[in-house]
Amino acid sequence: MSDAHGANPLRDALDRRLPRIAGPSGLVIFGVTGDLSRKKLMPAVYDLANRGLLPPGFSLVGFARREWEHEDFAQEVYTAVKEHSRTPFREEVWQQLVQGCRFVQGNFDDDEAFETLKETINELDKAQGTNGNFAFYLSVPPKFFPQVVQQLKKHGLADQKEGSWRRAVIEKPFGHNLESAKELNRIVHEVFPPHEVFRIDHYLGKETVQNILALRFANTMFEPLWNRSYVDHVQITMAEDIGIGGRAGYYDGIGAARDVIQNHLLQLLALTTMEEPSSFEADSLVAEKTKVLGAVRLPKDLGRETVRAQYTEGWQGGEKAVGYLQEDGIDPKSKTDTYAAIKLSIDNRRWAGVPFYLRTGKRLGRRVTEIAVIFQRAPHSPFDRTATEELGQNALVIRVQPDEGVTVRFGSKVPGTSMEVRDVSMDFAYGESFTESSPEAYERLILDVLLGDANLFPRVEEVEQSWRILDPIEEYWDKHGRPAQYPAGTWGPTEADEMLARDGRSWRRP
Amino acid sequence: MSDAHGANPLRDALDRRLPRIAGPSGLVIFGVTGDLSRKKLMPAVYDLANRGLLPPGFSLVGFARREWEHEDFAQEVYTAVKEHSRTPFREEVWQQLVQGCRFVQGNFDDDEAFETLKETINELDKAQGTNGNFAFYLSVPPKFFPQVVQQLKKHGLADQKEGSWRRAVIEKPFGHNLESAKELNRIVHEVFPPHEVFRIDHYLGKETVQNILALRFANTMFEPLWNRSYVDHVQITMAEDIGIGGRAGYYDGIGAARDVIQNHLLQLLALTTMEEPSSFEADSLVAEKTKVLGAVRLPKDLGRETVRAQYTEGWQGGEKAVGYLQEDGIDPKSKTDTYAAIKLSIDNRRWAGVPFYLRTGKRLGRRVTEIAVIFQRAPHSPFDRTATEELGQNALVIRVQPDEGVTVRFGSKVPGTSMEVRDVSMDFAYGESFTESSPEAYERLILDVLLGDANLFPRVEEVEQSWRILDPIEEYWDKHGRPAQYPAGTWGPTEADEMLARDGRSWRRP
Repeated sequence: MSDAHGANPLRDALDRRLPRIAGPSGLVIFGVTGDLSRKKLMPAVYDLANRGLLPPGFSLVGFARREWEHEDFAQEVYTAVKEHSRTPFREEVWQQLVQGCRFVQGNFDDDEAFETLKETINELDKAQGTNGNFAFYLSVPPKFFPQVVQQLKKHGLADQKEGSWRRAVIEKPFGHNLESAKELNRIVHEVFPPHEVFRIDHYLGKETVQNILALRFANTMFEPLWNRSYVDHVQITMAEDIGIGGRAGYYDGIGAARDVIQNHLLQLLALTTMEEPSSFEADSLVAEKTKVLGAVRLPKDLGRETVRAQYTEGWQGGEKAVGYLQEDGIDPKSKTDTYAAIKLSIDNRRWAGVPFYLRTGKRLGRRVTEIAVIFQRAPHSPFDRTATEELGQNALVIRVQPDEGVTVRFGSKVPGTSMEVRDVSMDFAYGESFTESSPEAYERLILDVLLGDANLFPRVEEVEQSWRILDPIEEYWDKHGRPAQYPAGTWGPTEADEMLARDGRSWRRP
Repeated sequence: MSDAHGANPLRDALDRRLPRIAGPSGLVIFGVTGDLSRKKLMPAVYDLANRGLLPPGFSLVGFARREWEHEDFAQEVYTAVKEHSRTPFREEVWQQLVQGCRFVQGNFDDDEAFETLKETINELDKAQGTNGNFAFYLSVPPKFFPQVVQQLKKHGLADQKEGSWRRAVIEKPFGHNLESAKELNRIVHEVFPPHEVFRIDHYLGKETVQNILALRFANTMFEPLWNRSYVDHVQITMAEDIGIGGRAGYYDGIGAARDVIQNHLLQLLALTTMEEPSSFEADSLVAEKTKVLGAVRLPKDLGRETVRAQYTEGWQGGEKAVGYLQEDGIDPKSKTDTYAAIKLSIDNRRWAGVPFYLRTGKRLGRRVTEIAVIFQRAPHSPFDRTATEELGQNALVIRVQPDEGVTVRFGSKVPGTSMEVRDVSMDFAYGESFTESSPEAYERLILDVLLGDANLFPRVEEVEQSWRILDPIEEYWDKHGRPAQYPAGTWGPTEADEMLARDGRSWRRP
């Protein structure tokens, strides 16, 4: 196989069989000195190059206030790649990649800097053959989104020319409520046409999240069970064990629900509950996700069916952790939620009457993200009651991270002279079943941007539906009292346990 | 907990919770010098005693031609227990058990011996408190069944007296066709009432076989898929790696289909396909099993849809194996099948149109018994055709032996930048999930006989239905040509592969 990037590519088995190689193009990163850029974006670009999925002249342009020369920037990329890349470092790949590294110094209000950026892009088109195809990655605080896209427009950088493309890549949060999201979308779409705007929800780049669709629609065994006739309820959990770290400025006033439920958890909900799309083209997927999100209803009593809370002092991993209100940079009177749990329903034929419990929090027992589909008990048991005392409900759990895979819990006979049935489980683990190591979410997503493949990016309709769902909850919380509390290192406030206990259910302890 | 048998019982967790302890009783074994008795029955009796599930005065009577004193018999039991018991040897348990050991010497036509047996039983009633409750285990060649039961009748040993019981335990084969089975049943039922006759199919004593019912009816996840809407076909396999060993006299003229399909495989078929019984009482179970066996239909073209074969010379486990016709004691012109494969259908609403493939054989690739439910492909795939090239059909496999457990095979996304789906599997293994070791089938079955619990014993109706199914096949084979051939150590004759290939299917290689 010919080698697009020069060095012999380290392709995955599948890359070899079904190569999806980006055409001539470059990536401009705004906010290139940030954590995301160093830990995820730069390493992902290198890993793609190493796998032979980038074109030979691929170019990477950094834009930031830092007073760097091109060489300083290249050195930064080099360090980030060495520290954080998934695939082994190979000098020949790096030598090829560094040919296309450029740096532009400036503020976002600096017209001269954007003119320099324009010149840089023109220079790269000539030197590297990037053909005018550039994606602008806005890895910057959301307040700068409008300014950056308007500067791109003003300096002609967003002009779609015949035979080439310009794309915008936006990191969350996409607004902080429905109104601000609409305003942001309006501004972005004035500059870039909708199909050239890629909103990053890195959860959608995870293998296990994409696998939800494979599980549901490539198999016969699961889909017949996937409805109100068999499902008792669904629990979607994203638990973090860390606190807010250095993100106080971003986090306070945003909170867990906006930071995680609005995007990651509602996307997981949509993938878990949507109808089968007629194909995996982006338009079909978006239509189904939007449709099911549009059918999501809030509980009537938001006081009883939602819970928000803040962590207090506690112990985590054997170390003392301070409470949220004592964290550096947090207003000691802050009402921001570091934990949020909400109950939703979906008003359609498939899901009517099935509750969906979503929860997320910081400083919880451990780091885990999972979707647990809990099935009803068998409608009738021919077994003695005593024989099934230790039998729970069947469950199918999609483990998003860590220990990516699937677990099925079911009842099996206990060895012995009586017919006693007890829960057992069987596991499928990604790590054990595939020799291929999973690409990082950002590898997949950056490649998709360069290919113009929008499958894994939430569209404007989904973002707006998500805010429609969350806004009344945030408004309710804003008006009523203060968050509940939970000690750091525990599994959340007792109020959340009570919320499920009232339904005769309990949270999983994953 | 009080200890029924004297020594502190080694009960399984479940024995402790739901003790099923036999009342005062004894077991008489005819053919006590045979392999089955030494390797299975005597050790099972000891294991039950060790687990505290036998009454303190439990008695074991051996009947055989051997010129033994009681002490010689006791020594034989001791040796068998030491060599073959599942649970650890404990002197105090043995000392208790040996109190009830007796031996009666004689032939089956020897009236005097049966009178001695009667006296022995009366003596045990007084000395050991067995209360007249005795089970007669016929571990003898089938030709002696009528004689033994008639002797029991003649000497008043089968008389059911008020407040006590007499039971007959019969090992397979239950006849060699429908007519002989009916005749045998008639003779046995003249002596013992039907509910006191226990036909042993030791497969039904296996944990994994009992677990078929737990899997199907204690869970929500499997039963909705368990029908013609989702199941493509079912394969039931019992493969042995050994030849006929020293059983030439028994085996030749019987063959694989009569030896295995008529009992074990048709029982597995019945448990896999029957409707849910309203309870697990024997009557309910028998009714459902008989009903579904009654709905089993043979294929029209027995020449194309059944295969029988004999193993020829080959290699197994690195050693040369002789062909069946070269085995000691086998008629070199024998037409006996050492391999049999048949295709059946079940004419009812649940299973119409679903083929069931049953196969068994000696000298196959390895020893394995399994039930594989193979599901249809998804009716529509939204994935690219190339993306599912390596995706097979979903399957649920009940591994009866060895490696007892359940495997589910399904499709999962292959890590990489495309949506490719490939088969993966998840496992539940008895050995890993339960600390309890599984009782031997004979422990369970002997205890059930003493308790009068007939759940796990095929009844006369089932036996007759099984012969109804098998007879036309045996008659066809008898009239048409000779068996096909397969080299020892392979997975059977090419004719069997062709039989499935004509249906667009293939045998599993377990």
